[in-house]
Amino acid sequence: MKLDALAELRRIDARARRMSRVSAVLQWDQETYLPAGAVEERAEQISDIEGLAHERFTDPRVGELLESLGSSAGNPSGAESLPFADRAFLRALRRDYDRRTKLPRDFVEAVARDQGLSQAAWVAARKANDFSAFAPHLHRMVEHAKTRAAFYGFSSNAYDGLIDEYEPGMTEARLSALFTPLAAGLSSLLSRIASRPQPRLDFLHRNYPISVQEVFCERMMDDLRYDRSRGRLDRSAHPFTTTLGADDVRITTRYFADNPLSGLYSVIHETGHALYEQGYGPDIRGSCLADGASMGIHESQSRFWENIVGRSRSFWERYFEPFKLMFPACLDGVDIDSFYRAVNAVRPSLIRVDADEVSYSLHIILRFDLERRIFSGELSVPDLPEAWRDGMRSLLGVVPDTDADGVMQDVHWSMGAFGYFPSYALGNIYGAMFVQAMTADFGDIGSHIAKGDFETLLEWLRGRIHRIGRSLFPDEILFEICGTPADAMPFLRYLETKYSAIYAF
Amino acid sequence: MKLDALAELRRIDARARRMSRVSAVLQWDQETYLPAGAVEERAEQISDIEGLAHERFTDPRVGELLESLGSSAGNPSGAESLPFADRAFLRALRRDYDRRTKLPRDFVEAVARDQGLSQAAWVAARKANDFSAFAPHLHRMVEHAKTRAAFYGFSSNAYDGLIDEYEPGMTEARLSALFTPLAAGLSSLLSRIASRPQPRLDFLHRNYPISVQEVFCERMMDDLRYDRSRGRLDRSAHPFTTTLGADDVRITTRYFADNPLSGLYSVIHETGHALYEQGYGPDIRGSCLADGASMGIHESQSRFWENIVGRSRSFWERYFEPFKLMFPACLDGVDIDSFYRAVNAVRPSLIRVDADEVSYSLHIILRFDLERRIFSGELSVPDLPEAWRDGMRSLLGVVPDTDADGVMQDVHWSMGAFGYFPSYALGNIYGAMFVQAMTADFGDIGSHIAKGDFETLLEWLRGRIHRIGRSLFPDEILFEICGTPADAMPFLRYLETKYSAIYAF
Repeated sequence: MKLDALAELRRIDARARRMSRVSAVLQWDQETYLPAGAVEERAEQISDIEGLAHERFTDPRVGELLESLGSSAGNPSGAESLPFADRAFLRALRRDYDRRTKLPRDFVEAVARDQGLSQAAWVAARKANDFSAFAPHLHRMVEHAKTRAAFYGFSSNAYDGLIDEYEPGMTEARLSALFTPLAAGLSSLLSRIASRPQPRLDFLHRNYPISVQEVFCERMMDDLRYDRSRGRLDRSAHPFTTTLGADDVRITTRYFADNPLSGLYSVIHETGHALYEQGYGPDIRGSCLADGASMGIHESQSRFWENIVGRSRSFWERYFEPFKLMFPACLDGVDIDSFYRAVNAVRPSLIRVDADEVSYSLHIILRFDLERRIFSGELSVPDLPEAWRDGMRSLLGVVPDTDADGVMQDVHWSMGAFGYFPSYALGNIYGAMFVQAMTADFGDIGSHIAKGDFETLLEWLRGRIHRIGRSLFPDEILFEICGTPADAMPFLRYLETKYSAIYAF
Repeated sequence: MKLDALAELRRIDARARRMSRVSAVLQWDQETYLPAGAVEERAEQISDIEGLAHERFTDPRVGELLESLGSSAGNPSGAESLPFADRAFLRALRRDYDRRTKLPRDFVEAVARDQGLSQAAWVAARKANDFSAFAPHLHRMVEHAKTRAAFYGFSSNAYDGLIDEYEPGMTEARLSALFTPLAAGLSSLLSRIASRPQPRLDFLHRNYPISVQEVFCERMMDDLRYDRSRGRLDRSAHPFTTTLGADDVRITTRYFADNPLSGLYSVIHETGHALYEQGYGPDIRGSCLADGASMGIHESQSRFWENIVGRSRSFWERYFEPFKLMFPACLDGVDIDSFYRAVNAVRPSLIRVDADEVSYSLHIILRFDLERRIFSGELSVPDLPEAWRDGMRSLLGVVPDTDADGVMQDVHWSMGAFGYFPSYALGNIYGAMFVQAMTADFGDIGSHIAKGDFETLLEWLRGRIHRIGRSLFPDEILFEICGTPADAMPFLRYLETKYSAIYAF
């Protein structure tokens, strides 16, 4: 009987998830090939399909079946007699079902409507550099987020409820405890770097033909063991990874002729996400477990391949010569040391998405601190531009001239995605923890990278992280692999070692 | 009250149709960009969405609302007091609803399953040139088609029921009456052509770079007034047109370096279909009326642009010089007369899709005759290969060595799509009738074509055919435009005039 209930649950879950995949197809097409005239119609198609997905996900039968299997809010994993895999499935499904059914339909619809208005207002206000035109929308998104957190049962600390959406089990207090020493360490590192001479960068801005960049990036995906029979690479305005099916994980990028690293590192970053999505085990295929354990864990995968692997000296030991051969006019007379230093140039700047590996997390810490204060009531929306400038000054030592390059630079808040930003810094933190464990398991990863042996690294990640998907929470994964909860020290040590060598201090 | 019922019906219809559009997105992606590994999963997604579309289309509420508006099997258009547009809407919806609800679910599922098996068997049997391996599947598809026709209420003449699916109002008897004189006229024309010297063809098989062909084809689409902001051109194994939304009508083609006409005429053909789909009036947008009046009318549009326009001398008067400039190495020393004759070379051959404008319809007449005899019981499936060879011999004077190049060359029968083939010949017949009416309205269309004034031709088609979609049946459209029912004589006269000039007899 339990087996029947489980089988029925798995069927409902798979059918609901299939509808999300269909929505992903519609959205992928929207970002890549949709004719300009069809934008509105496509939005209607997506909203229709999302509605059907929601209906399937929130089928009351799911609640009944979960209960019949012993799963409740207090004991989401169900009867203890069940095998681990089933308990992991029940726990994830209970979490999703509760979250989805706790939000009343009219609330979801009102938020969706206001989100559309808010995003449009953000686009216009950013263009006009007019924060006051965006502020009322942002205020409404903050209020909606508080309401959402309350529906989820986080009425005493709304921000915890929002963080938990992206990073199950994480809280504001734990993030503060992680980010305080991280900020101190990064600031110290930045000031030491600032006292040293900057590397040459001119050769990174010559003319790198886009068609050649594309060939290099495709080869890179193959080298990193991305399975192109189960995905593809296209172009879009902003790079992204999307899962259209268990065997259809696609990435996109964009290329700039005068900046070859932008396209390349976008491809490596998205390939990192895609390797995770392509790596879910056959036993969880098509189920709610076939998803990232959290946004932070997902980001640890993309950042591992992009930064720890892709910006390492070992990586360029392998790829500098082939890269130079493909762009002979650009890198004549440039040696690997100059190139490696240029790739890792550190210079605090205004825009998060352009930030280097050292200052990046400080951009996140600023956003975390502002979100924290907004939801505690310490700050109100009209105070944000000034608080932004203050934070930039104290964390990064640079201050934007305009709100467009400051508080309005990211899309996230306009969509009400508060609590999302910390994932990016967690990705950096987790990634360095994983490398420490990898190193303990098979020695310096650099020797594998320099040989192009990405298989060893990938198999390690597959076995411990990818295969199980969401079967474990982030903390459980860290504990299994590292024996500790999240800890910023490995990341700081990694940066110290790398940048003291590059900047010779 | 009637207004409420109509509004509700229109809402249900639009929602059902939206689901079909989503399915079209999934199918378009499947034919263009889907990774090889994702084929099975995509089939499941499509089947799920098609099931949802079917549910919406067959919502019993549709039946109730139709009845409440006075629509019945005997009086599909509803109350006479309603305006024409509403009556046309009710008639089309009644037709679709009845067809869809008359097939029991288990029958539809059994057919879908057998269709899959039959198509796979066809692919394998064709490759192995083994008709006997395909025959049992084909037999099953014939039996299913008979059952389908019986469900539709065509138990005395099943073939009429199948024809009517693609060409509302058309019957076997009427097709016989059209095709008999057509076959005689075409045979006579073929034998006169065969007695004349054949044109040079060598220059059509030189190296025409595909990237240049692509540029020429895109320019052609623009010239023909295809709206690229509401569609796009991609490549696929077989050219097709598909409608992903009222503002998203896409076409595909394929290119061969040694045969530039294949890609070009595929693009013009599909553009013809797409112009029809892009031309539905705003008043029928997103409704069941925003569709072709029939397969024959649809084919008349693609064939008009491909053959009557695209293979005319006037067309090449405009395009031969630019074409030559784009492929200078290929057409050096070739003049427009030689080129025009080569484009229109007539030579009876084995394969329908490669056939010239004169012999094409004979391939259709053969298939019609075989289908007719299969459904009357005169022929059985095992007799088909021999009947095929006999038919080819008497109609076209050529006989295939293999069944792969004979009775198994087309996909249609393997899917059970009997009654579909006649549409292709009807497209030729209708197209010539329309040109006769156009000529009466504004003189020789050649003068417009030679000037590149396609707008005048398109506007004529838009106003009389495209705008109204399915608001009229094919016969009604013909009567409005030509004052007569379908008639093969204008097509025969058009061919006589054109080919007696080309072959000088």
